[in-house]
Amino acid sequence: MRATLIYGAGDVRVEDVPDPVLREPTDALVRVLRSCVCGSDLWPYKSRPATEQGDRIGHEFLGVVEDLGSEVSGLRRGDVVVAPFVWADNTCDFCREGLQTSCRHGGQWGAEGVDGGQGEAVRVPQAQGTLVKLPVGEHSSLLASLLTLSDVFPTGHHCAVTAEVGPGTSVTVIGDGAVGLMAVLAAHRLGADRIILMGRHKVRTDLGRDFGATDIVPERDQEGIDRVRELTGGDGTRAVLECVGTEQAVRTAFAVVRDGGTVSRVGAPQYEQVPMGFGEFMRNLTLTGGVAPARAYIEELLPEVLDGTLEPGRVFDRTVGLDQVPDGYRAMNDRTALKVLIQP
Amino acid sequence: MRATLIYGAGDVRVEDVPDPVLREPTDALVRVLRSCVCGSDLWPYKSRPATEQGDRIGHEFLGVVEDLGSEVSGLRRGDVVVAPFVWADNTCDFCREGLQTSCRHGGQWGAEGVDGGQGEAVRVPQAQGTLVKLPVGEHSSLLASLLTLSDVFPTGHHCAVTAEVGPGTSVTVIGDGAVGLMAVLAAHRLGADRIILMGRHKVRTDLGRDFGATDIVPERDQEGIDRVRELTGGDGTRAVLECVGTEQAVRTAFAVVRDGGTVSRVGAPQYEQVPMGFGEFMRNLTLTGGVAPARAYIEELLPEVLDGTLEPGRVFDRTVGLDQVPDGYRAMNDRTALKVLIQP
Repeated sequence: MRATLIYGAGDVRVEDVPDPVLREPTDALVRVLRSCVCGSDLWPYKSRPATEQGDRIGHEFLGVVEDLGSEVSGLRRGDVVVAPFVWADNTCDFCREGLQTSCRHGGQWGAEGVDGGQGEAVRVPQAQGTLVKLPVGEHSSLLASLLTLSDVFPTGHHCAVTAEVGPGTSVTVIGDGAVGLMAVLAAHRLGADRIILMGRHKVRTDLGRDFGATDIVPERDQEGIDRVRELTGGDGTRAVLECVGTEQAVRTAFAVVRDGGTVSRVGAPQYEQVPMGFGEFMRNLTLTGGVAPARAYIEELLPEVLDGTLEPGRVFDRTVGLDQVPDGYRAMNDRTALKVLIQP
Repeated sequence: MRATLIYGAGDVRVEDVPDPVLREPTDALVRVLRSCVCGSDLWPYKSRPATEQGDRIGHEFLGVVEDLGSEVSGLRRGDVVVAPFVWADNTCDFCREGLQTSCRHGGQWGAEGVDGGQGEAVRVPQAQGTLVKLPVGEHSSLLASLLTLSDVFPTGHHCAVTAEVGPGTSVTVIGDGAVGLMAVLAAHRLGADRIILMGRHKVRTDLGRDFGATDIVPERDQEGIDRVRELTGGDGTRAVLECVGTEQAVRTAFAVVRDGGTVSRVGAPQYEQVPMGFGEFMRNLTLTGGVAPARAYIEELLPEVLDGTLEPGRVFDRTVGLDQVPDGYRAMNDRTALKVLIQP
């Protein structure tokens, strides 16, 4: 089959790889209907050292069950399923607590002999725990929105949930990438009454407005901070959803959060330390968030996607075939595409 | 009157200062019955640059109302009252949310013309909001325990509350100083079932056992981390209460907290940054806590102190008169005293 490999910074290739086969009785084989490129895929795309053999990549996919190991129940061949971006048994203590990203028997896609999602098919470990059956056919018009349940939508949701966004909460979302826009959607869904989106790409912030943003702050750095403070009577917002992952974004987050408030981060950190010294201590600021246990949220978010109330799939603004995946990476890296859908 | 001033590192003096007088109609004058030295007073005692004029110091006191401004209601001359370690109007939006440390009209003791607590008397700004009347006389045997409501007990409590300690929570407390011991007491009171106290001063950890610690870890650094992990099946505890304030303590906290868990810090930070990079992100760790809004907790904690269920005053292991305050600082700095009570 064909699958995507990354050989180093800027070097993504689609190549022939061995067809996946069942290895464990807990495995399933899934033929991929849709996959996509994640903002976090751009970090290795920007900086990974060159390698000889390349590594499989991609961690978001939705597909059809083609085969099942003997210990997998609850799924059948032909089922359309979505996979969260971390596989997990969904039965260990961490999974039962909703922290499938720390599953005792789970792991990452595209690592340690596990396929990446940007290919024609995937061997899914711990299939019973990992996969969620979708009540749609493989030609459903909802596939793009359903694919967001794999990562980007639950990631935005995790950000809002861990920041304790609820009815009436004031929120600032930092970043108008796909995750930031999903955080807007999630905060709106949870009842936030004011959602300030910090972002300067008008096409994206317009979509943010559609998703529920009440104010757009295109200014950056101190100017952006001043603007958010001005919009909030000098106080900042109770919740700040940091959807970028840079130290500058974290600094901005602390500068626009209200005393006693919470910064939640879901942008993969490109930093080692965060500024939480005496000043943040005196203001009783909380930093939370982390890698989203998407599996914990899929059932909750699914109904509103199925009935069309929510259209998270609008974050995809380009669709490519598998052979065009390198173009997709380039487009996202150049910011000419917001998020690229892959239709193998 | 006599009051304590700090002139620089190691240089604390008790001197004659002008008697306090009412300045604002919202003021009260309080004759101090008990004050004490805080672990946080030791930071300037260790490092403050020398000054010519000295600064008033002390932020924990309990006393008798001697006079009241015209706008103060709910208090009478002769009332025994305790003051939280930050004064506040207790009516602004932050105060109503229980964050009196961010009061819009509040401030610190010993700063900007406000008296310190380590003296014979104190002018109390925003007296109606700040002071809490205690239903005891000025010779009550409970004064030491009641004085802890000013800071150290609510600080331990804040640490446990912000870490979401509740029935069945597993907890590690870092630090066997007075705040750490109060965090043990607070975690026990809130129902924690396992409380591991990291500390190496046996007299203190013995008191920690009395307050509810189930395990003592005297080892430090990596050895201490290994021991806590060993005690918790390799996972660490769900809540970690960081009661020291050094970067090393924060690093230890992240190393002994369970995935998905919370580190709460109430030790005044002697650091600018905390290590919360990719690893902590992947583990979904939260950092919370901060300066404790003691005022928010006094009414809740008071009844169990009054009826003797809780004896937080056991953290005081030395009592000095006002003139011996410099000895008290020395003793706490040398760790020959845990916490020094001042009886002016």
